[in-house]
Amino acid sequence: MSRYDFASDNTAGAAPEAIASLVEANAGFASSYGSDRVTATAAQAVRSLLDADVDVRFVASGTAANAIACATLCRPFEAVLAHAHAHICTDETGAPGFFGHGLGMIGLPGASGRIEPDALDAALGQADAPHHQSAAALSLTQSTEYGAVYTLDELTRLTCAAAAAGLPIHLDGARLANAVAAGFDIRSLKSLGVSILVIGGTKAGMPLSEAVVLFDPSLSRRFDARLKQAGQLPSKGRFLAAPWIGMLQTGAWIARAAHANAMAKALAALMPFPLAHPVQANAVFVEMDEAALARLQAKGWSVYRFIDGSVRFMCSWATTLEAVEALGEALRGVV
Amino acid sequence: MSRYDFASDNTAGAAPEAIASLVEANAGFASSYGSDRVTATAAQAVRSLLDADVDVRFVASGTAANAIACATLCRPFEAVLAHAHAHICTDETGAPGFFGHGLGMIGLPGASGRIEPDALDAALGQADAPHHQSAAALSLTQSTEYGAVYTLDELTRLTCAAAAAGLPIHLDGARLANAVAAGFDIRSLKSLGVSILVIGGTKAGMPLSEAVVLFDPSLSRRFDARLKQAGQLPSKGRFLAAPWIGMLQTGAWIARAAHANAMAKALAALMPFPLAHPVQANAVFVEMDEAALARLQAKGWSVYRFIDGSVRFMCSWATTLEAVEALGEALRGVV
Amino acid sequence: MSRYDFASDNTAGAAPEAIASLVEANAGFASSYGSDRVTATAAQAVRSLLDADVDVRFVASGTAANAIACATLCRPFEAVLAHAHAHICTDETGAPGFFGHGLGMIGLPGASGRIEPDALDAALGQADAPHHQSAAALSLTQSTEYGAVYTLDELTRLTCAAAAAGLPIHLDGARLANAVAAGFDIRSLKSLGVSILVIGGTKAGMPLSEAVVLFDPSLSRRFDARLKQAGQLPSKGRFLAAPWIGMLQTGAWIARAAHANAMAKALAALMPFPLAHPVQANAVFVEMDEAALARLQAKGWSVYRFIDGSVRFMCSWATTLEAVEALGEALRGVV
Amino acid sequence: MSRYDFASDNTAGAAPEAIASLVEANAGFASSYGSDRVTATAAQAVRSLLDADVDVRFVASGTAANAIACATLCRPFEAVLAHAHAHICTDETGAPGFFGHGLGMIGLPGASGRIEPDALDAALGQADAPHHQSAAALSLTQSTEYGAVYTLDELTRLTCAAAAAGLPIHLDGARLANAVAAGFDIRSLKSLGVSILVIGGTKAGMPLSEAVVLFDPSLSRRFDARLKQAGQLPSKGRFLAAPWIGMLQTGAWIARAAHANAMAKALAALMPFPLAHPVQANAVFVEMDEAALARLQAKGWSVYRFIDGSVRFMCSWATTLEAVEALGEALRGVV
Repeated sequence: MSRYDFASDNTAGAAPEAIASLVEANAGFASSYGSDRVTATAAQAVRSLLDADVDVRFVASGTAANAIACATLCRPFEAVLAHAHAHICTDETGAPGFFGHGLGMIGLPGASGRIEPDALDAALGQADAPHHQSAAALSLTQSTEYGAVYTLDELTRLTCAAAAAGLPIHLDGARLANAVAAGFDIRSLKSLGVSILVIGGTKAGMPLSEAVVLFDPSLSRRFDARLKQAGQLPSKGRFLAAPWIGMLQTGAWIARAAHANAMAKALAALMPFPLAHPVQANAVFVEMDEAALARLQAKGWSVYRFIDGSVRFMCSWATTLEAVEALGEALRGVV
Repeated sequence: MSRYDFASDNTAGAAPEAIASLVEANAGFASSYGSDRVTATAAQAVRSLLDADVDVRFVASGTAANAIACATLCRPFEAVLAHAHAHICTDETGAPGFFGHGLGMIGLPGASGRIEPDALDAALGQADAPHHQSAAALSLTQSTEYGAVYTLDELTRLTCAAAAAGLPIHLDGARLANAVAAGFDIRSLKSLGVSILVIGGTKAGMPLSEAVVLFDPSLSRRFDARLKQAGQLPSKGRFLAAPWIGMLQTGAWIARAAHANAMAKALAALMPFPLAHPVQANAVFVEMDEAALARLQAKGWSVYRFIDGSVRFMCSWATTLEAVEALGEALRGVV
Repeated sequence: MSRYDFASDNTAGAAPEAIASLVEANAGFASSYGSDRVTATAAQAVRSLLDADVDVRFVASGTAANAIACATLCRPFEAVLAHAHAHICTDETGAPGFFGHGLGMIGLPGASGRIEPDALDAALGQADAPHHQSAAALSLTQSTEYGAVYTLDELTRLTCAAAAAGLPIHLDGARLANAVAAGFDIRSLKSLGVSILVIGGTKAGMPLSEAVVLFDPSLSRRFDARLKQAGQLPSKGRFLAAPWIGMLQTGAWIARAAHANAMAKALAALMPFPLAHPVQANAVFVEMDEAALARLQAKGWSVYRFIDGSVRFMCSWATTLEAVEALGEALRGVV
Repeated sequence: MSRYDFASDNTAGAAPEAIASLVEANAGFASSYGSDRVTATAAQAVRSLLDADVDVRFVASGTAANAIACATLCRPFEAVLAHAHAHICTDETGAPGFFGHGLGMIGLPGASGRIEPDALDAALGQADAPHHQSAAALSLTQSTEYGAVYTLDELTRLTCAAAAAGLPIHLDGARLANAVAAGFDIRSLKSLGVSILVIGGTKAGMPLSEAVVLFDPSLSRRFDARLKQAGQLPSKGRFLAAPWIGMLQTGAWIARAAHANAMAKALAALMPFPLAHPVQANAVFVEMDEAALARLQAKGWSVYRFIDGSVRFMCSWATTLEAVEALGEALRGVV
């Protein structure tokens, strides 16, 4: 029997707080397309989380949310700067180009998914030319694709460079909860100059929901039309909004992520293979040869090799210490 | 206080059968992106409903589902034939053109949302020319935007004409449950030559979910990549699939729609304004002047004037007879 | 033998002034992509014509020029207001939607291709809603698709309404030379608030070239990248620019259009069929039944029925009085 | 004074044979949009060149021609395999993604712009997954971006691999004339399984024109509509077609390319800097440090550093031996 516990943080179900809110929101009639009270309450909870007066939308897909953000900030003959291994560059089937009508992605290097500041500077210093897609926005990921967490100083270094070059910023927060649980102050986002933030609900323990946050009020005009055309303005909007109420009002959005992070640390502690990246959030990446991976998979553990060649283990709100220990034992058996 | 009961059939919550399935599906870990058992079970339930061996996907948005269907069947320099008042033509913010990279819509006339066969023939008879977008697919809606239900003969007349001209067919079944509850044999679809069918879950009583059915197996290749790029391949796919299990296995998908249809008939029976369209599914359209509409709205009833100038009242699985009677009384008071 | 003299104003070759300039520009080496001296000289000639300090580009296609203009002014979830029978609405195979990623066109009524001001006001008064593509730009055509010429007052009425609503303006000047020859003061454009103007070279007697004029300097940034990506930044740019030098410096651009207009008036004077539109530029539209049209075509005259049901005869710089008289005789023979 | 002789092969004007044909084609009226006799004659000349019964179109832009070819062969969620330094990957401002609605490019390695066969095999062996854009077409360039010429055996190796994987082939022949002049048998293309070929006219000595050749007849349906929507179906089509008549019927298309190749060899013989790539067509790439390049540019020679770090010198039909010698002397002076 396959075990999906560590295959991804999207193999878990939804946390009880999310389900409870969803069921509660189901009662009665409500106006459509996000104009209902549940959505208003959830948006307010996001504003409280961020301590910022922002526009909030709830959409069904992180792929769409991030791609729409890029399309909002760039034109088709421009490009987004992002880490070369950012999800949006490698794992979205070209969604930014689809939603952005051919907009380009410029991949930047950096350890553990964090963009190397000098590389950003070099990219920002590139002169415009009509023959290539010039950079028009910076996309950051917190926590990163490799489970690292930018410090505020590191983020500030990057956002200031982008701002100095006139580039707006998108932040992919699919795992922002894990970064916050690891110590990142989410209220710092309002002063970092982020234009569009996507906050992950799905990986944080909701059924499927991402919050799109517009820090830049000039982006709000006709944003609902943008979402509708792109298939991201659901009629029964309350079902995407509701889980946020339970997860945020109870603190579960952070507490559940803290659990996931703790499970990752526990797994790292048991790990007989060398770590490929620092374990700062809910991911454990290790160096493991093909034979060992095959043996582990043969035992039923569904995990896979990542784009950088290491093998990834993800923890989630639902990961149990028993599972971590069982995996640890399995890992020791395949060394 | 506003009453949204009749504003749309998407103002209702989800039916108990849908919620129960969703909660049940929440247990444990599951593989991602639609490769899980819940999704497989739901897809099988759809196949049983249709009595057809088809590929099934579950997506979060009807707008996206229908637009992706059009983009699958047409190229950007081609067009989709549809009723001029079909949802896809009038109410999707140009989604077919967005997902289809500029593909065109050619609006056809016909009473109560049913395409007039002669108009279809005329459109199909148009010679290709490089200066306009020639028809490449036919889009049908069952039940129609005006609450009418095509008979099998009527549908056959249209699909045969399209097939003779080499055009594949898309069927927008956002309210297919209501058509089935009104007597339409859903198993007839497999012999009608439909290429892509979108079955509505949301309006039928689910939180948010639409089933995309590929009757034409040649369309299946890389269809998941198409969905992923378009933001419609959710990682926690089970949450879009689960409600179908409860709704289909219990028969609620049809039974709940039958209730909605019955409420519409009950409302029509009480209606002091002339009907604008036959009441065959869950919609009641009436001729009402601006003053009467304003008086009704002033009483708190959220309803609105439709594109054809009539005023629309929608019933859903959640509409109560009490509400119908209360609305009937309100209507009599504003004549 | 077919005679194409009156089929369109694009069936003529290029005027001697255009060819002479092109041949002259052929000498020697030149830098690429519009950075050459020929292009600079031609751009200066356009600025002199307009008496305005504007950015000018030369492209190969009016379809692309107008579609790129729309895409520059609107986002995919928005729409362009234009006359319902404007070329861009009816005869471009959906190019605005292709270049604009699904942007919509909203067709407005009005006699002889001139937008009816009240209809524009009504369209501008439409409230935004996420479910449809709201107007974001106004597209005008001078002279119109039906050979009418807006007076300055008429244009001002429309551009002021658009400006008051915050909409930028695109002017399709495929036949602007004919309007100017008919008395329209081209220098008035700079004060009309036009953002992007496309000046027709092809129909005015060049091989193939259209000038894209950016009145709004904020649009210039990365415009060459936009053109390059869209396939409209030719490497040997001098060949698109050169004809403008000869045509503008000699005054032929206007003088040749004046001839075309005079030929249209001469044809109208001989015309045995009722005129469908006033003859103000180089087009003659008449009411002619199918049998008469067939008889005319059988005599070898290539002309065709237009979208409004009338039959179109176009004159160009190359139309001769002999041809007009021969056509007049043929027309009298088919009454 | 700047000298553009070697900056590119698009800094030259048009060859006398091209201009003569263009001027000759100018006479009289002609039907529009490529339905004229000049276009028919030019298309026939291309068929004779290829010794193949193919559909031919003439367009104004190589960027557009190649991007439209990719869009014809791939869907947005798929990708084109090409050399990582192919023009289409590096120098088109993302045109394939724009015309192809987000389609991806997968860059392959290989010496001097020739795709390494093993790398192609590896790419073709990649399993489909919904999370990335799978390969759907192979794009080749002959002669390559670095002035190399594939042998027929080398091309066959690549096209057979693609065909075995079911991928159609696009060939970018912007400099096909140079390859043919270097010994490549152009008639071999018909048996290589190329689906769409773009033959360069511009760099071969025409004003601006590229021939799009459809070897696969199934692609012809509605291809004119595709071109029209994309702004590549010019009304006065004869002006794009005419130069081909003179260049092909006189043999100048090959003879002029042979001259360009000979000039490149002459330059290579004089070159005091080490060659970075074999000189097989009309390009000379050399290793030159920044100081030397700056000194050369300071003498007025407009040349630049290429994406691989070498410095490029291009020869064309118009390059003179005097210029080669003058450049040679300048180069010796900056060593």
